[in-house]
Amino acid sequence: MTSFTFSRQLTIAWGDCDPAGIVFNPRFFEFFDTNAWMMFDAALGVAPQNLASHFGIIGIALVDARANFLKPAKFGDVVEITSRISAFRRSSFDVEHRLINGGDLATEGFETRVWTGRDPADPDKIVALPIPKDVIEKFG
Amino acid sequence: MTSFTFSRQLTIAWGDCDPAGIVFNPRFFEFFDTNAWMMFDAALGVAPQNLASHFGIIGIALVDARANFLKPAKFGDVVEITSRISAFRRSSFDVEHRLINGGDLATEGFETRVWTGRDPADPDKIVALPIPKDVIEKFG
Amino acid sequence: MTSFTFSRQLTIAWGDCDPAGIVFNPRFFEFFDTNAWMMFDAALGVAPQNLASHFGIIGIALVDARANFLKPAKFGDVVEITSRISAFRRSSFDVEHRLINGGDLATEGFETRVWTGRDPADPDKIVALPIPKDVIEKFG
Amino acid sequence: MTSFTFSRQLTIAWGDCDPAGIVFNPRFFEFFDTNAWMMFDAALGVAPQNLASHFGIIGIALVDARANFLKPAKFGDVVEITSRISAFRRSSFDVEHRLINGGDLATEGFETRVWTGRDPADPDKIVALPIPKDVIEKFG
Repeated sequence: MTSFTFSRQLTIAWGDCDPAGIVFNPRFFEFFDTNAWMMFDAALGVAPQNLASHFGIIGIALVDARANFLKPAKFGDVVEITSRISAFRRSSFDVEHRLINGGDLATEGFETRVWTGRDPADPDKIVALPIPKDVIEKFG
Repeated sequence: MTSFTFSRQLTIAWGDCDPAGIVFNPRFFEFFDTNAWMMFDAALGVAPQNLASHFGIIGIALVDARANFLKPAKFGDVVEITSRISAFRRSSFDVEHRLINGGDLATEGFETRVWTGRDPADPDKIVALPIPKDVIEKFG
Repeated sequence: MTSFTFSRQLTIAWGDCDPAGIVFNPRFFEFFDTNAWMMFDAALGVAPQNLASHFGIIGIALVDARANFLKPAKFGDVVEITSRISAFRRSSFDVEHRLINGGDLATEGFETRVWTGRDPADPDKIVALPIPKDVIEKFG
Repeated sequence: MTSFTFSRQLTIAWGDCDPAGIVFNPRFFEFFDTNAWMMFDAALGVAPQNLASHFGIIGIALVDARANFLKPAKFGDVVEITSRISAFRRSSFDVEHRLINGGDLATEGFETRVWTGRDPADPDKIVALPIPKDVIEKFG
């Protein structure tokens, strides 16, 4: 578990919600995706749109995503999403997102992402690359 | 043209963009929809989720939406969307949205919305209702 | 594992894809959500919009969703999504979705949903209700 | 007005709808965008994902989009969207979309798109290119 965390506040919009008046589940995955990019920006000082070129990679490909829905979020609710990296491995890492609504944990998200780039020996091949040490260090 | 304007900054997210790397057009309509709600909140002091109950209406139904796309917006761009009501009629009104990207007008949006509620004489009937005078006044 | 399965073909649209040219992950959860509704329609002969009223429930609330992304899907790809209920419990059930792209398993989805309604003793309280026997039987 | 028309049926999904239980307006623009791609495929026999490479262009860039909302569409409604090109100009064209719901015209959409590519004299410059004659002919 790294020590760096990133939080942002978000107001649930009309268009985030379904006929039950609550956030449609795919939107949570979109909120979490945006939080992951913003967390990298906050930790590394590299804007999301520059992350790939800065590190010479293709991206931080998502290979697994999960969420559980404990309490709904409705139109107008002001929620806070806090993200952290719960584990770094050689070339993959896990992200944890916690969405708090009205003081309660409403949704948890879990992602596994891979530091993805081109094989130095064969640029046509897309491979998992080792995560740079200084990236890991910046997350504490 | 009313004098009240509402502006917010927005950072274009990965999920807002299409394979051309620019905002997918329906997202602009979503940005504008959210801005319309936020503008009402800012002008009237009534949160979007309370607007219908506060005024005893069903909503501010969209009957016409238009946008033109002058310059693209890309992942990571910080844009500003300024909204105002350009015309009030008896029960409908026009909203204008201007999205500025890097100092340039990038997208303009135009909406016509109707102050919609139940017919006092027949609650099963949904009708256009007169917009309250104090609502119009608050927009200057 | 029940024996009933539901499949549909889907062509990946421009708007489903992100700047990497592949389906943006939240869209898969949307595909799976739609498949879950369609599977119930196919198994029970009750249209999605009538499911709640037909069974006197509020809905089939999602409490957990997961997906893994094995192979991307791109604009124009024709994919097939096959869904089945992998487990029924007293008031909850698990749905499995398999998205095949070009003959390969590209994405797997897993949902847990709850048969949700009002407490007969206190209609203000929303509770998990027992899944009707004939619903379970229709899924084999 | 060209004579070629393209139609498809679509069932409104849960995730297309907002808390009012009707299709959220940006989704109509997404439906129309997909119809535009599918209409080109049907008229020209070129799959959407190959359109740019087939004609040596960048794409059919949207510069103006409009819709009016005459009648709502709800979860489960089976609608039909018919699209045609209402005007071809040198390098731009207009698309008209008509969404029929339960026999009634529910939403009309209007797009202006530009045949967009690289300037032959300066490939760094993106310009409007003349629409090939045989493209126009195939739309009648």
